[in-house]
Amino acid sequence: MPDSSPVTVFGPCTLSNLGPGYDALGLCITGPGDRVTARRTDAPGVTAEGPPSLPTDAERNTAARAAAHVLRQAGAEGGLRLRIEKGIPMGSGVGGSAASAVAGAVAANEVLGRPFRKPDLVEAVLEGERAAGGYHGDNVLPALLGGLVLVSPSDPTAYRRLTLPAPPPLAVVLPDVEVLTRDARAVLPATVAHGDASAQAAELAFLVRALLEGDWPAVGRHLMRDRLAEPFRAPLVPVYDAVRQAALDAGAAGVALSGSGPALVALVPDADAEAVVEAMAAASRAGGVEATGWVARVDPQGARVVDSELA
Amino acid sequence: MPDSSPVTVFGPCTLSNLGPGYDALGLCITGPGDRVTARRTDAPGVTAEGPPSLPTDAERNTAARAAAHVLRQAGAEGGLRLRIEKGIPMGSGVGGSAASAVAGAVAANEVLGRPFRKPDLVEAVLEGERAAGGYHGDNVLPALLGGLVLVSPSDPTAYRRLTLPAPPPLAVVLPDVEVLTRDARAVLPATVAHGDASAQAAELAFLVRALLEGDWPAVGRHLMRDRLAEPFRAPLVPVYDAVRQAALDAGAAGVALSGSGPALVALVPDADAEAVVEAMAAASRAGGVEATGWVARVDPQGARVVDSELA
Repeated sequence: MPDSSPVTVFGPCTLSNLGPGYDALGLCITGPGDRVTARRTDAPGVTAEGPPSLPTDAERNTAARAAAHVLRQAGAEGGLRLRIEKGIPMGSGVGGSAASAVAGAVAANEVLGRPFRKPDLVEAVLEGERAAGGYHGDNVLPALLGGLVLVSPSDPTAYRRLTLPAPPPLAVVLPDVEVLTRDARAVLPATVAHGDASAQAAELAFLVRALLEGDWPAVGRHLMRDRLAEPFRAPLVPVYDAVRQAALDAGAAGVALSGSGPALVALVPDADAEAVVEAMAAASRAGGVEATGWVARVDPQGARVVDSELA
Repeated sequence: MPDSSPVTVFGPCTLSNLGPGYDALGLCITGPGDRVTARRTDAPGVTAEGPPSLPTDAERNTAARAAAHVLRQAGAEGGLRLRIEKGIPMGSGVGGSAASAVAGAVAANEVLGRPFRKPDLVEAVLEGERAAGGYHGDNVLPALLGGLVLVSPSDPTAYRRLTLPAPPPLAVVLPDVEVLTRDARAVLPATVAHGDASAQAAELAFLVRALLEGDWPAVGRHLMRDRLAEPFRAPLVPVYDAVRQAALDAGAAGVALSGSGPALVALVPDADAEAVVEAMAAASRAGGVEATGWVARVDPQGARVVDSELA
C-alpha cells in the first residue's frame, strides 16, 4: 500500500479578527504561505520534520496533529511522514500555525487518495490548531476554504463563507516585533461593559453588511471600531499608532490589527496600495522597528496542492 | 398662516431586539398602530391630547416632543396641536412609544408643508423617544422608515436599512402582563464575560447574513441565541417558556422576545402562521395569562399619512 507519491500542499496566510470580528472573522489572502509535503509510511502514526523552531512532537505540531486526525478519520493503515517548510514568520499575526495545520490536513487527504472534500476537513484543521493552544476557526477555516469566513467563537464548527463582491487590495505590513499569543490573551479583560458588548455586536453586523454589499468606505470605518481586543492589544505593538496613521494618511479606508498583531492590514479601495504599504513600513522603521509588507488580494481558493509528483 | 387642514398619520408597531440584535435591530410590521392628528395653531409650542394614560406635558409625550423638534427644525411660526390615538397597548414590547413619536414627527412635517424627507426626521424621532426615557433607534427608525433597520446602540443616528428578500410571515403574541421598561433594564447585568461578548457579536453577524440572504432556517436558529438580554428578561414573562415551546412545536423556525417583552415573535417560513399564533396564545392562556396575537408581515413603508382632509 504505502509508497504512493508524496504530495506537497500550500497553506496560505490569513487575516483574522479584522476589527470587531474578534475570534469570528477570517480572510484568506495572497502572500507567503507554509508548505507541507506528506508521504505514506508503513509505520503507523505521524512524524514531522521541519525548521528547528517547530515542535516535532505530533501533539504539539499543528500540521502533524491535523494530519493525524485525517488519518484516523479515513481509517487508513500505516502512517504519514510530513516535511514542513515555513514561509510565514512565527508570531506575526497572519495565521502561521493555521497555514501549517491546513496544509497538513490537505496533504494527508491527498496522499490517502482524497477520501474527503474540504468541508469534511474542518474538524481536522480545528484539531490541528489546538496544537497551537486554542480552538479557534478564524484562521484555519479561511486558510482551508479560501475567501472570507464568519465563524462562531463558541463553536467553530459553525461557520459561513461570505462572498465578497470585487474586494479591493489590502496593504499588509509586519512590523518586526513578536507578539506572544499568551501575552495577547492576557491583556484582554475578563469582562466588558454590557453597553460595549451590544455596541460590538452591532459593529460586527454593520461590518458584515458592508462586506457583503461591497461598501468599502463603510468596511473601512467599521474595521476601526473594535471594543474587545484591539484597544488592549495595540500597546503590544510599539509602532501601532504611527503605522495606522500612515495608512490613513496614504489614503486607506481603514486599518486593523490582524490576529493579535503585530501585523496590520489596511483596506485600500481608492488609493495606490503599494504606496500605502510603503508608507506603513516607513512609519514602522521611523519608530525603530524594521518591517516588511506586501499588497495582498483575497485568495478565494485556500489550501491547494502545489506538487504531487516530485518533492 | 395656520389653520391649514389637519393631517392624520399612522405610526406602525415594530419588533425590536430580535434575539442577538439587542438595541440594534428593529423591524416594522403590519398590525396595530398609533394615530396622530396634527393641526397648526397660532400659539407657539406643541400641545397634545390623548388617552388619560399619556402624559400631556410635551417634554414627556413622545409624539409632542418629536413634533416640537420638527417645528424647531423647520423654523416655522406658530405651534401645533396634536391628538393621539393609541392602537398599541402600553408596555407590550412592540414599540408603542416609538409609534407615537414617529406619527407625531411625520404629522408635524406634513402639516408644515413637508419641508423634510423621512431620513431628515431621524433626529426628531430619536428626540421623541427620549420622552419615553431612552435614546434608542431600534423602534423609531423602522417605524419611520419601514422594513428592517440595523442601528448602532452607541449612536442611533448611524443606521442602515437592510433589504429582506421575500420575508416569511411572523406570529406575534402579546401575553397580557406588563413589563416595565425600568424593570427590564434593571435585570440586565452591568458587565458580561468577554467570551459572551464575542459570541454575541458573531451571532448578530450570522443573523444579519441570514436575513440579507433570506436563509430563514438560519434566521430562526440565530434568533434564539441572544446572550445579552433575553436570558435575563424571560423570567419577567411568566409564560415565556410555554409560549416559546408552543411556537416551535407548531412549526416556527425560531422565537424571540420583542423589545423587553412580553411580546413574543415567531418566524414561520414553513408552517401555518395562523396556527402558530393560536398555539402560542393557547399556551399563554393555559399558563393563566390572557393573550392576543396576529399574523404579521414586514411593513416596508413605515409611518404614513392616512387622512389629510378630515379628522
